[in-house]
Amino acid sequence: MENKITNLFKIKYPVIQGGMVWCCGWRLASAVSNNGGLGLLGAGSMTPDLLREHIRKCKSATDKPFGVNVPLIYREAEGIIKTIMEEGVKIVFSSAGNPKTWTKQLKDQGITVVHVVSSSKFALKAEEAGVDAVVAEGFEAGGHNGKEETTTMALIPQVRRATGLPLIAAGGIATGAGALAAMSLGADGVQIGTRFALSEESSADIRFKEHCTKLEEGDTLLALKKLSPTRMVRNPFFARVKEAEDRGAPADELLQLLGQGRSKTGIFEGDLTEGELEIGQIASLIDGIEPVETIMKQIVEEYNRALGLLRAW
Amino acid sequence: MENKITNLFKIKYPVIQGGMVWCCGWRLASAVSNNGGLGLLGAGSMTPDLLREHIRKCKSATDKPFGVNVPLIYREAEGIIKTIMEEGVKIVFSSAGNPKTWTKQLKDQGITVVHVVSSSKFALKAEEAGVDAVVAEGFEAGGHNGKEETTTMALIPQVRRATGLPLIAAGGIATGAGALAAMSLGADGVQIGTRFALSEESSADIRFKEHCTKLEEGDTLLALKKLSPTRMVRNPFFARVKEAEDRGAPADELLQLLGQGRSKTGIFEGDLTEGELEIGQIASLIDGIEPVETIMKQIVEEYNRALGLLRAW
Repeated sequence: MENKITNLFKIKYPVIQGGMVWCCGWRLASAVSNNGGLGLLGAGSMTPDLLREHIRKCKSATDKPFGVNVPLIYREAEGIIKTIMEEGVKIVFSSAGNPKTWTKQLKDQGITVVHVVSSSKFALKAEEAGVDAVVAEGFEAGGHNGKEETTTMALIPQVRRATGLPLIAAGGIATGAGALAAMSLGADGVQIGTRFALSEESSADIRFKEHCTKLEEGDTLLALKKLSPTRMVRNPFFARVKEAEDRGAPADELLQLLGQGRSKTGIFEGDLTEGELEIGQIASLIDGIEPVETIMKQIVEEYNRALGLLRAW
Repeated sequence: MENKITNLFKIKYPVIQGGMVWCCGWRLASAVSNNGGLGLLGAGSMTPDLLREHIRKCKSATDKPFGVNVPLIYREAEGIIKTIMEEGVKIVFSSAGNPKTWTKQLKDQGITVVHVVSSSKFALKAEEAGVDAVVAEGFEAGGHNGKEETTTMALIPQVRRATGLPLIAAGGIATGAGALAAMSLGADGVQIGTRFALSEESSADIRFKEHCTKLEEGDTLLALKKLSPTRMVRNPFFARVKEAEDRGAPADELLQLLGQGRSKTGIFEGDLTEGELEIGQIASLIDGIEPVETIMKQIVEEYNRALGLLRAW
């Protein structure tokens, strides 16, 4: 199987592991790359020094391509970009920020650059900035999210129509059937976050993983829309946010309620009460914590099985 | 092409036209049925007498199967159900209410009953009530919507896993590629609302249709969550709702702001300022007002073309 995405990254399957904060160290990224996908280190929860360590360990753990995800508004972004260049990483996924800031410099170093967007308008801005591909991420995705609330089903065909760039679909995709749906909508590949965040190799706390695999439909919601819309699990912290939002609390008060480091508290330290538990809506479809090898095999098998069931009209 | 849905309704393509309020009279329903799909009369904006007239006109306009959509919480629901039985309609889609109330009586009259749900839990309740199929409708759909905010991409595989009933996907589907995505996720058919609401045969006001075909991504949002979550276009009425919601207005105040008949004002009378303009998120993908014959042909052609582009992994 070969297409724009497998050729761009030199990988076997057009499956990218989302570079989520607190989940994506060298163990997860190398496992995904070793199993035919593209693993990403999640630099948004690392210092430049820690990232350097993860890049080096990832290189020891796989001879396959891997990349780094950088949220451009992260206060350490400049140091992260510098580290990426120094360590010779060949693939960068940028998100949450202006793609014009770093794309040219990265491209000049021979780095493949992909930007994550939540709308066709931002896809065109990324194209103007010179990126090699875009990830279009729908409303169902975990964590930070677009203000337009466009779902993957509605977003992908619109980004497909807007740009000829290689297009990776994200948000709500956890299985082979989901990947096939995304390809049907015109994507060239998929980015899978939630399912890998809940894999054995993810560095999220086991309590976070176990809790997320027991969620039911409706157990995550988009909150903090007056700050930056964020999908999180309904837990006691969420309940306080919702209470404040329902009575019209201003952005300041929400910012104070959020405080510092809540996603670390929830995802990395496993505090299910006080933490901000960022995970995608599709978590309710996932029932167990599995190794990446099993997940990748299942996705590919399910994709092919679901494809075999489709009939012409 | 034959499957559970084409066999259940005796139709050519597994494409159902959503039975939206103010859009779906005999012209639209008969056009969809005459072109190989299943047309539905939208009884939620009709008196029983008006429905009787539409049923009779629909019968004169097509010899193909058609049905009626009934929102069960509608104050005229009982009269509507009575009219359906008296006029010998063979297919009922019920929504917004308890499927136990009428399903048995309808089934006893030999009527095929389908219920619209927004979650697996409600799909199981519908199955218990004895329905013949379910429509699972995602967050991207226009008008009234589930509290769980589950998108079509996340919802369909979960309803598929929960029940063996014939499954119709709805929400965000307007093209053949969207239909193929839904079938990839495990649906047996699709319900298309927005695209038919904006067709030539739809009874919505031309100003509403023209406005909706010019929308961009992010131009519809879910509002009125303290009453009943409803997707509508951002217009001056929406802005007043949002202002009230942002400052924490209670349900009472929102109810008063909403008042009576706002969806009629917007959709049927074409008041783009004061009306509640209910339409799906996928409206931004639709650029023109076309006849149903063209729409159905395009959907089938696009479906087959998109299927032909899929490759095994």
